[in-house]
Amino acid sequence: MNDWQVISGGVTAPRGFQAAGITAGLKPSGAPDLALILSDTEAIAAGVFTTSVVRAACVDYCRQVLQERPSIRAILCNAGQANAATGELGLQDALECADLLAKELNIPPDGILLASTGVIGQRIRMEAMRSGIPQVVKALSPDGGDAAAKAIVTTDLVTKSIALETTIDGRPVRIGGIAKGSGMIHPNMATMLSFVTCDAAVSTHLWQEMLTRAANKSFNQITVDGDTSTNDALIALANGESRTKAITEMDKNGEKLEGMLTEVCQYLAKSIARDGEGATCLVEVKVSGALDEESAGKVAKTIVGSSLVKSAIFGRDPNWGRIAGAAGRAGVQFNQDNLRIQLGEFVLMENGQPIAFDRQAASNYLKQAAAGAYLKEDTVLIQVCIGNGSGFGIAWGCDLSYDYVKINAEYTT
Amino acid sequence: MNDWQVISGGVTAPRGFQAAGITAGLKPSGAPDLALILSDTEAIAAGVFTTSVVRAACVDYCRQVLQERPSIRAILCNAGQANAATGELGLQDALECADLLAKELNIPPDGILLASTGVIGQRIRMEAMRSGIPQVVKALSPDGGDAAAKAIVTTDLVTKSIALETTIDGRPVRIGGIAKGSGMIHPNMATMLSFVTCDAAVSTHLWQEMLTRAANKSFNQITVDGDTSTNDALIALANGESRTKAITEMDKNGEKLEGMLTEVCQYLAKSIARDGEGATCLVEVKVSGALDEESAGKVAKTIVGSSLVKSAIFGRDPNWGRIAGAAGRAGVQFNQDNLRIQLGEFVLMENGQPIAFDRQAASNYLKQAAAGAYLKEDTVLIQVCIGNGSGFGIAWGCDLSYDYVKINAEYTT
Repeated sequence: MNDWQVISGGVTAPRGFQAAGITAGLKPSGAPDLALILSDTEAIAAGVFTTSVVRAACVDYCRQVLQERPSIRAILCNAGQANAATGELGLQDALECADLLAKELNIPPDGILLASTGVIGQRIRMEAMRSGIPQVVKALSPDGGDAAAKAIVTTDLVTKSIALETTIDGRPVRIGGIAKGSGMIHPNMATMLSFVTCDAAVSTHLWQEMLTRAANKSFNQITVDGDTSTNDALIALANGESRTKAITEMDKNGEKLEGMLTEVCQYLAKSIARDGEGATCLVEVKVSGALDEESAGKVAKTIVGSSLVKSAIFGRDPNWGRIAGAAGRAGVQFNQDNLRIQLGEFVLMENGQPIAFDRQAASNYLKQAAAGAYLKEDTVLIQVCIGNGSGFGIAWGCDLSYDYVKINAEYTT
Repeated sequence: MNDWQVISGGVTAPRGFQAAGITAGLKPSGAPDLALILSDTEAIAAGVFTTSVVRAACVDYCRQVLQERPSIRAILCNAGQANAATGELGLQDALECADLLAKELNIPPDGILLASTGVIGQRIRMEAMRSGIPQVVKALSPDGGDAAAKAIVTTDLVTKSIALETTIDGRPVRIGGIAKGSGMIHPNMATMLSFVTCDAAVSTHLWQEMLTRAANKSFNQITVDGDTSTNDALIALANGESRTKAITEMDKNGEKLEGMLTEVCQYLAKSIARDGEGATCLVEVKVSGALDEESAGKVAKTIVGSSLVKSAIFGRDPNWGRIAGAAGRAGVQFNQDNLRIQLGEFVLMENGQPIAFDRQAASNYLKQAAAGAYLKEDTVLIQVCIGNGSGFGIAWGCDLSYDYVKINAEYTT
C-alpha cells in the first residue's frame, strides 16, 4: 500500500498550487509573518477546527465559508496576532482581509479561507496587513512552499513541511503539507495550524471524511501539554490538477490517497510533538489488544500526556509504574492481569506484574533514544498491550523538562 | 448553616474512636508506617475509590467488603508498599493482614478495611507486618489521631488532619479526618488516601450519598498533575456514639451533617493541593454562571489543571489568555462573549474581551498570594464567569514549578 516517495516542494509540490511567505510587519521581530497558498483552479476544501468554545474570528469565518461552498481558491495565514477574544471588531478585520485578498486575486471573497496565529486578545495589525496583501500576492510562486512554511511559525524552532508522491491510474498524484506547532501548547502565541494541498480529483464528501480520519490518527493523537488552542485549524485542498479519474468511494485508489494523506498528517503531527516546548525527544506510544481503535488511541494518548510519564522520560527513568498508572486511568476498561509494557526492547511488565529487567540498560536506551543515537531516531518507543482485542492506536508527545516550565513561566512578564 | 467549630484530635475527636500509628519497619526510612483506626462499636462505612482499572489489592478488597456488609470496626493502613500490580499474591497478603488484625482485635476479618500506599509493584513486607499488627493494636488510644495521621504519609511535607464539632438536637456531633496526598500525583509512591470518622447516627444509604457528594466537591475537584493513582481511597465511618437521633433523610440535621462532612473533605483536599510536589501556592478557581454545578466544576478543574495556567502562576504572570483558553476547552458549551475573568481583585477580561489592567499590580498580587502575604493566605484566587446560569463550582490545585520536574524526573534512578 505505502508505495509513495518523499519529494520536495511542500504545499507547492502538487500540481496547480502556488504559495508565498513574506514579512508584512505583523510580528514585532521582523520575521516572515504572512503566508498565502493559491490553487490555480477551484479546489475541494475540507477542514478540521478547534473544539474550544473560545475561538478566533478566523475559525468561525472558515466554518461558515465551508458550510456554504465546498471549493475555494486560497488560504491566507498571518502570524503575530491570533485575533482571538477580539469580538465583533476582530471578525470585521477578518472579513476585510478576505475582501482585500479577493480584490487582489480577482476572485470572490468566499473563495478564501483565513487562519491567524500569535498573541490571543490582539487584533490583526491591519495597516501592515493592507500593505502586505498585495505584496504576498506578487510573491506567489510555484516554488513558494518553503517560504509559506517559514511565514506561519511563531515559537517553533524548526519549520515543518513535507510532500509525497504516488501513482494513481498510471499518473503521479501528490500531497504536500506544512504545519506550525509549539504554539498549540502555548495558547498565548496560539495554535496548531496545518495546510495540506493535493492534486488528486476527489469528491467533497469523501475528502472531508478522509481528512477527519487522518486527523484522528495524527493531529488528534499528539499532545504536548494537553492545552487546546483557540485557533487550531487543519485545512486540506484538492484541486484535481493531476487529471486522474475522480475518486468518489473508498476503492483501491481511495485507500491509497487516504493512506498518503494520513502519512502527511502523521509526519507533520510528529514534527510538532518533537518540537514541543522544552522537549528533548519524541515519544511514541503504541497500544494494542484493545477492543477497538478508539480505545487503543485513548490509552496511548493518556500515557503520552501523563506529566509523570513525561517527567520520567526526561529523567531517563524506565518507570513502568507510571505507564501502568496512566493506562489504568484512561477511561478504557481492561483486565489489569493482561497488561504488558515494553520500552524499546525491554519488557518491563507482563501479565499485569513487573518483571525483572536490566534497569541500567533500559535507562541507557532512553538516553540513546533521546540523543537520536538509537537507530538514528530521536524517538522513545513505548509499547503497551492491554488484552486480546484487535484495536490498535498510536499517540505522540514529548518529555517534560525544566525548559517547559521556564518557557511558560517567563513568557509575558 | 456553618455553625461548627474546629476542635483538636483528628480522627479520634469523634466519640468512640481510637487510633494508633507506629513504625513497623515497612518503610526503609524508619518513619512511622502503620496506622490503625478502630471504632469501639460497629460503624456505618462509606467509601469512594480510584476509578483506575489498574488497582491495588486493597481497593478490590474494600469494595467487596462494603458490598457485603454496611458496617465495620477498623481501618488498617500501611505506608511503604502500595501492593498494586502484585496479582494474586498481593491479594493473599491483604487477606492475611485482615485475618491477623481480626484475631488481634477479636472481631471478624470482614469487619476490617485495608489501605496501602507506597511503591507500586511491591508487595507488603509481611514479616514486618506480622510483628507490627500486635504492636499497632497495643498502641491504640483515644488520643491516637495525630499518630495515625503521621503514619499514613509518604512524600508529603506536612500531615493533614482536622476535626469539627457541631450540635445536633442539643448534643455535640463531631467529624474528624486525616489524609495523605502528594502521592496522588506521584503514583510510584502511590495515592491519595483519606479516612474520616464521625459519631453521628446516620443511615447507611444516606451516609454513602453524603460522602459521594462531599467527595465530588472536594477530592474530585483537586488536581496536581492529573494523574490518578492505583490506590486512591476515601473511607468514612459513622458509629452513632454521639447518641443523637438517627439521621435518615436530608432534613435540617442531614444538611448540617453533610455540610460539616463537606467542610472536612474540602479542608483535607485543599491541604493535599497546597502540598503538591514542587508547589509554591494553592490555586483556587471559582466558576459561576454555568448551567449546572457539574459544568461549573468541570470548567474550574480544567483551568486549575492546565499546565500553561500553572506555569504562568509560578511565573507570577497574570496571563488571562491561558485561563480563557483552558475554560474554552473544558468540554462545556458557553458563549465566549459572556466570559469574565478575575484574578484576585483584578478584572482581566470582560464580555469575552481583554480589558486594561495594571499588569504589575496583578503580578504583585500573585507574588503576595504565593508568599502567603495576601490576606495571610497562600491562595491564588481566580474567578471566572461563563454566563447567566446559577451553576457554581470550585476546584483547587497548585502551580507548576521547576521542582515538580526535578522531583519526578529524578525519582527512581
